[in-house]
Amino acid sequence: MNDDSSRSAWAYLSSVAQGPCGPLSDLVAAVGADDAARAVREWDLPPALQKVTQSRRHLDTAADDLELIESLGGRFVTPDDAEWPSWRMLAFDGCDSGRESELVAPLGLWVLGTASLAELTDRAIGVVGTRAPSNYGTSVTADIASDLAAQGWTIVSGAAFGVDAAAHRAALAVEGASIAVLACGVDRAYPAAHQALLRRIAEDGLVVSEYAPNTTPQRHRFLERNRLIAVLSDAVAVIEAGRRSGARNTAKWARRLGRPALAVPGSVNSTTSVGCNQMIREGEAILVANASDVLVEAGPLRLPVDEVTLDQRVTDGLVGDQLLVYEALPVVGGLAPQQLAEASGLPIGNVRAALPMLELAGFVVSDESGWHRVRQRRAS
Amino acid sequence: MNDDSSRSAWAYLSSVAQGPCGPLSDLVAAVGADDAARAVREWDLPPALQKVTQSRRHLDTAADDLELIESLGGRFVTPDDAEWPSWRMLAFDGCDSGRESELVAPLGLWVLGTASLAELTDRAIGVVGTRAPSNYGTSVTADIASDLAAQGWTIVSGAAFGVDAAAHRAALAVEGASIAVLACGVDRAYPAAHQALLRRIAEDGLVVSEYAPNTTPQRHRFLERNRLIAVLSDAVAVIEAGRRSGARNTAKWARRLGRPALAVPGSVNSTTSVGCNQMIREGEAILVANASDVLVEAGPLRLPVDEVTLDQRVTDGLVGDQLLVYEALPVVGGLAPQQLAEASGLPIGNVRAALPMLELAGFVVSDESGWHRVRQRRAS
Repeated sequence: MNDDSSRSAWAYLSSVAQGPCGPLSDLVAAVGADDAARAVREWDLPPALQKVTQSRRHLDTAADDLELIESLGGRFVTPDDAEWPSWRMLAFDGCDSGRESELVAPLGLWVLGTASLAELTDRAIGVVGTRAPSNYGTSVTADIASDLAAQGWTIVSGAAFGVDAAAHRAALAVEGASIAVLACGVDRAYPAAHQALLRRIAEDGLVVSEYAPNTTPQRHRFLERNRLIAVLSDAVAVIEAGRRSGARNTAKWARRLGRPALAVPGSVNSTTSVGCNQMIREGEAILVANASDVLVEAGPLRLPVDEVTLDQRVTDGLVGDQLLVYEALPVVGGLAPQQLAEASGLPIGNVRAALPMLELAGFVVSDESGWHRVRQRRAS
Repeated sequence: MNDDSSRSAWAYLSSVAQGPCGPLSDLVAAVGADDAARAVREWDLPPALQKVTQSRRHLDTAADDLELIESLGGRFVTPDDAEWPSWRMLAFDGCDSGRESELVAPLGLWVLGTASLAELTDRAIGVVGTRAPSNYGTSVTADIASDLAAQGWTIVSGAAFGVDAAAHRAALAVEGASIAVLACGVDRAYPAAHQALLRRIAEDGLVVSEYAPNTTPQRHRFLERNRLIAVLSDAVAVIEAGRRSGARNTAKWARRLGRPALAVPGSVNSTTSVGCNQMIREGEAILVANASDVLVEAGPLRLPVDEVTLDQRVTDGLVGDQLLVYEALPVVGGLAPQQLAEASGLPIGNVRAALPMLELAGFVVSDESGWHRVRQRRAS
């Protein structure tokens, strides 16, 4: 199926959509890329799709775009390709996208760099933050990103000034991999001052965009781009963020996609930590102080749930109430929160607070008969 | 009932117990202080009580202790007195003290200072932390404690070096009140270097101890004392704490007694913020950045639940998911978490995470029919 005409169909759809487009993704899911591209070209569409494709369906730049990306030494990766990070993109199916048409997988990714997209995103952490960090933010970014990269984790970020650039550079410095996800075509260096940095990122890792070449960066594209940083990662760590920060948006995507949103705390007197402290305070992010905290949170997600052996090694990541609650669960069967409170000796409020965290981390599930360890549930 | 012989009975029991003693408190609850004191003096006790009173029952220092406290211009406040903070001490009844005999109200409080104990603890915040804070910790302590004290909140702390002393001084500096809860008799200045500070605290506020005069500070008494800092406060804020810190113990008491445990975040590179960051990370404390964050958390507790009008003013304190979940609850009747997820548009995990927080804050309760707003529940 992955022949040139199919790739051309995906490229056409990608450039017509110019970013996430729920109705178009639905059409592709229903009839496949080839027929979807044909339907758009021939204007054989229900009204909702006519509306969203109207302005760009005549601009068939697929052949030019594919030629350009090839001339740059890059490629256009589609859901038909082996290196498509399929299991990561499943997160879009798992979340309620009803009200937001941008909460869909991209219609292909334009890529610079020789590494395999699937392999590089097998173990990946999003590291993001303000464009104007303090010295503290820059140094914590370097510490966390280099520790993660040195342990073989790919750093996913946005190549922006500040925390993003520090994260990419930290990965490069330990000869680790990073992925820069752009809000414009990968033929553009954005920001322009990062042209050399982007070239180096593509050497050791990948520069990626869902926007066809020649697409300019626009405000809404940064927000759309942020969802890709989240979906390509096991967790997203915000290192420093002011009160209003794009990084907070990335963390929000992470939560919606089932990835832990993490934030590094900082001085309550620092304007560049206000956003992180707020996210932690409001339960939007889990506090992390270092790379090992990040991996405690990111850990469970990457193990296929059915193969998880919830032995000491895995529960090592659990601490405090969560560990007590988990250990209070029987190996077979379920318990109600009140029974768990009795079994664990914890107040019922602590049990109720720990359960959703354990659920998010993939350790427990609930049904009508109560809360279960994941493995028992799967086996039953 | 509050005659001299009763006070003398309480004082005798206080000095026999020398700190919290569950079995003795049970006896007092069952037969009253006068008969309890007689039973201990006459050794007319069940074996469990014989054991815990054996070593000190012969040392009847009540008369001397009462004379000494009077000579110091102080007094011994008992549960029979009007200024006894009765409603605060109710928290001990509300928690499961089964396994810990120290989780009981004190058998009276030895007090220096002219203010009423009940009035001064009507609106009170515990402010505690490491004995060796950084400049950051000292300055944040001063900011938060003086803001709270200037708004009429009493600062409750332990008069130790570091954060405790900074908190008391900040209250004094704005002519606010503070309460120093000691782990030794109030006739002792501990630490000795704080003799003048303790004298000033007693002028504008109170110096308090459950230990009779002449009791020396011992390690276990600091831990017992910490529960009193918690119970006399609407919330306990830990400003800075190292990895192992008594302040963390105070926060633990706060949680067990139904008071919000709060912590100020700090640099992940600061050893004096490790404890606070950890508490926040592990869900043991809520992140607070300033006095107004503290009051958002401390607020609901001090309103008698039956009189709470959950109007805009009160829900002002709610943010993010908690506000959305609260607003999704009907005015009459209950909803299951799944229904709340549908009504609020939030993922079920977020709803499950928000509910225990709302419950802790006193906004919602649950029963067999689901989750309810508190006011409806009370009215039904």
